[in-house]
Amino acid sequence: MAEVALLGFKPQLVVPGMKAEAAVQFYKAAFGAEEIGRVAHPKRKAEQECPLILSAELKIGSSLILVSDCFDAAGEDSAAAAGGGGIAFRLEAEDVDAAVKKAVAAGAEVMSEVSEEEGSLLGKVKDPFGVVWAIAAVGKKSPEPEA
Amino acid sequence: MAEVALLGFKPQLVVPGMKAEAAVQFYKAAFGAEEIGRVAHPKRKAEQECPLILSAELKIGSSLILVSDCFDAAGEDSAAAAGGGGIAFRLEAEDVDAAVKKAVAAGAEVMSEVSEEEGSLLGKVKDPFGVVWAIAAVGKKSPEPEA
Repeated sequence: MAEVALLGFKPQLVVPGMKAEAAVQFYKAAFGAEEIGRVAHPKRKAEQECPLILSAELKIGSSLILVSDCFDAAGEDSAAAAGGGGIAFRLEAEDVDAAVKKAVAAGAEVMSEVSEEEGSLLGKVKDPFGVVWAIAAVGKKSPEPEA
Repeated sequence: MAEVALLGFKPQLVVPGMKAEAAVQFYKAAFGAEEIGRVAHPKRKAEQECPLILSAELKIGSSLILVSDCFDAAGEDSAAAAGGGGIAFRLEAEDVDAAVKKAVAAGAEVMSEVSEEEGSLLGKVKDPFGVVWAIAAVGKKSPEPEA
């Protein structure tokens, strides 16, 4: 199969129970994490006091981690439906379709087909060792939160 | 509390069932991973055909991940005892004791006290969100496998 350009991954911690904000505060206190970016759920932000976190990007030492709330399309806690939160790897690829196909050919299982999600092409696979890889297009940012 | 110097972390995938080697091969096939280092269990290597992997370091795109077998001190599969494998973060610190103390003060729980393990000072904590952090001393390498 042709070479597929991958640009590396970041661990993404998906926190159930709307506790991503608490997790961010914990990592600041415990590991001196520095928050270098945050994208809130745009709709939820406008309507609710406590915005959902699509992703907060933290720097711990020289490494980056994403922290996200675990929620469904309606903005509700989806931990029960999705089997709880956990750690995924968000992998950036130049060609998301090709990267997903290559992973599946090697034995990964598709969890969600490639589609436009959070403003970016995204597909999810689970590998034979139980690790979830969210394969996203490079250089397409999620929408900025409204000011 | 005083500032604690952390030098970043690598995700560490702990694979039960002695399947770390299979996982390494999968990541090569699925994501074009490049193996840039491996430390085998020195004792097991001498005695058995199939050496246990203390850690294989893989580069996927620009990112690094460690893949390890899940085993106990006797070199047996410890998945059942330890509650299976999973993903941990291996965090490098200049002062392991101070880093563990700071994490615990912020709300983490000690999983194993700081001790010499695999040739390096290591302590393990679980954070309030279920993530395991293996906090290891910087610049102390595990012993090289025998040639």
